[in-house]
Amino acid sequence: MEYFASPVARLIEEFSKLPGVGKKTAQRLAFYVLNMDKNEAVSLANAIVNAKEKIKYCNICSNLTDGDICYICRDKRRDQTTICVVEDPRDIIAMEKTKEYKGLYHVLHGSISPMDGIGPEDIRIKELLHRIQGSDVKEVILATNPTIEGEATAMYISKLLKPMGIKTTRIAHGIPVGGDLEYADEVTLSRALEGRREI
Amino acid sequence: MEYFASPVARLIEEFSKLPGVGKKTAQRLAFYVLNMDKNEAVSLANAIVNAKEKIKYCNICSNLTDGDICYICRDKRRDQTTICVVEDPRDIIAMEKTKEYKGLYHVLHGSISPMDGIGPEDIRIKELLHRIQGSDVKEVILATNPTIEGEATAMYISKLLKPMGIKTTRIAHGIPVGGDLEYADEVTLSRALEGRREI
Repeated sequence: MEYFASPVARLIEEFSKLPGVGKKTAQRLAFYVLNMDKNEAVSLANAIVNAKEKIKYCNICSNLTDGDICYICRDKRRDQTTICVVEDPRDIIAMEKTKEYKGLYHVLHGSISPMDGIGPEDIRIKELLHRIQGSDVKEVILATNPTIEGEATAMYISKLLKPMGIKTTRIAHGIPVGGDLEYADEVTLSRALEGRREI
Repeated sequence: MEYFASPVARLIEEFSKLPGVGKKTAQRLAFYVLNMDKNEAVSLANAIVNAKEKIKYCNICSNLTDGDICYICRDKRRDQTTICVVEDPRDIIAMEKTKEYKGLYHVLHGSISPMDGIGPEDIRIKELLHRIQGSDVKEVILATNPTIEGEATAMYISKLLKPMGIKTTRIAHGIPVGGDLEYADEVTLSRALEGRREI
């Protein structure tokens, strides 16, 4: 039994495809849209199509951009000798928010995951190598996620970069600031021990 | 500092206007849209505009419909002598799911709420009266919400209907099925006592 008029049913279905949006939430969103001003609804719809049409990958680092080159690669004040390699454009946002890092980025758009059929050629590793050749880059910071896939990807890239004479570093793993030793898992804790520094 | 390219920033902003969608969720939705197929994104955008354009209120009961008359009012098998009055089209869905009620509906699109400046003339009460005059309707079930506003609205409508010789009933309030006496509030519990029936 279909209780909703078909345009409403379709809208609910479309909303429920979004991540974290179940049937009830999709209904709530759909009814919210029905109560919106016509202009607001059109504006939401346009924003979706517009973002999808305008956004592409930066020709240099594969970050998201609405031009050819992203705002970070365009910024000549940034340290051109360091590249931080991340899995996802969102990781750049997280790094930028620290306001500590002043170098460039490279987005892999994934990580090596044989279980999911994703090999080194499926993520943007060759773009990274190509970019480094003949450049001023001295250090590559591997900031892939601390997961099996992220670690494997970091390992794989570091093995390709070492022969090129480029310093390869990995971000530190350990207890998060404000975290509690009692609740830390053993792997994190042993990494924290391993990475201990003299004070 | 704006970390996102402007079409992404705009999409995040649009998503975060939706109910229950905070900044983080809006970001997640926006990045999900960016990873969608072009067709899927267009389909989502079209569903929004389409629902907004096509859906109007039923000429008879003010339920949502994409025609002139909703599927319930069109259905001649339904009991034409009973009207269930609800505040919102979503309440119809809830009632229909019980599969118990076979009569017609009337959607008020709100409730009387002097605090919010909503008076009887701002909700669809006169449409209800107009509809009942000269019809076969024998009973009006007031199924507004069990809130101050919903109760006031039910009371107001019942006072208008009584002189017309129409039976006016109110849905029962009490302990929800599967609920626990211990956790019921006093008002609900006293309503449950009041409404006790011989078994």
